[in-house]
Amino acid sequence: MDRKAAQLQTIETLTKAGLVLTEDEMQRVEIADFGLDRLEQEGLQLITYENNSHYCAKELVLFPNQTCPEHKHPPIGKTEGKQETFRCRAGKVYLYVEGEPTESIQATIPRESEAYYTVFHEVELNPGQQYTIPPNTLHWFQATEQGAIVSEFSTTSRDEYDIFTNPDIKRTP
Amino acid sequence: MDRKAAQLQTIETLTKAGLVLTEDEMQRVEIADFGLDRLEQEGLQLITYENNSHYCAKELVLFPNQTCPEHKHPPIGKTEGKQETFRCRAGKVYLYVEGEPTESIQATIPRESEAYYTVFHEVELNPGQQYTIPPNTLHWFQATEQGAIVSEFSTTSRDEYDIFTNPDIKRTP
Ligand SMILES: [Zn+2]
Ligand SMILES: [Zn+2]
Repeated sequence: MDRKAAQLQTIETLTKAGLVLTEDEMQRVEIADFGLDRLEQEGLQLITYENNSHYCAKELVLFPNQTCPEHKHPPIGKTEGKQETFRCRAGKVYLYVEGEPTESIQATIPRESEAYYTVFHEVELNPGQQYTIPPNTLHWFQATEQGAIVSEFSTTSRDEYDIFTNPDIKRTP
Repeated sequence: MDRKAAQLQTIETLTKAGLVLTEDEMQRVEIADFGLDRLEQEGLQLITYENNSHYCAKELVLFPNQTCPEHKHPPIGKTEGKQETFRCRAGKVYLYVEGEPTESIQATIPRESEAYYTVFHEVELNPGQQYTIPPNTLHWFQATEQGAIVSEFSTTSRDEYDIFTNPDIKRTP
């Protein structure tokens, strides 16, 4: 799937869920394949509504069975790492964070990068459910076959500082 | 309209727009009549998804033609006042902030409290449109006859410090 097709699918997914973007926002829909070139397996689509020195709000779209690769948000200078609240709006998401590993996880770890998924404490998020990920904590997440929309409320985003477990990943949209 | 009816109408409004609340959140839907006892004219319904020491996310629901009275969020000690980003999700909102008064405003100022509306720089928000209100800036807003849903992204909420222009207002939900 090319960038343009991914943008259109993202806009369609949001529209079907009743979420409206302006024309300008439609142009700004970000397609993140993390430099892995297998977007449908490992990737994320997002639109940033607001990102200022205090808070940030985005809508994240996951295509069916798509995985956002494991990463964390480290402290930057004297500033704590980014803290994220994920609120599931549509579909279903399996979120994995540091902590007691869940015995039998529901997600399927992407085959090509199996070694780079290392935290397995599972949080299932259905519409209306949310979870807050503390700063500097490894996490990854996967949509089920229905795909998903997740509202992200957080402290300031500085994506270029994110640390991914997979050393091949380059976070340049 | 009593509190229970207002809660039900709020939940119905959100549900119709495809926004899902958990059972617990439905119980927590806040009905703010600001102590004026004329909710349908001056009031606000809201659900707080997250409010921590860094950021806050809420859904605001306005019934048809309902007005949220003029107020501002002052600094608290060394902390700047609350900064709010309003994103219209459904319906239409007229927002008024400090600045050059708009010549002929589209909202109808609530008759009983006309003297307590003093800023008239108009911002019209349709679905997908948003506006960020700086700290310590007077603002008020009104839905059109369709009502409205507004996502609020902001710094920490401390409602008890809000300053309303109308001295009769008590912000105790
Ligand atoms: Zn993250
Ligand atoms: Zn306010």
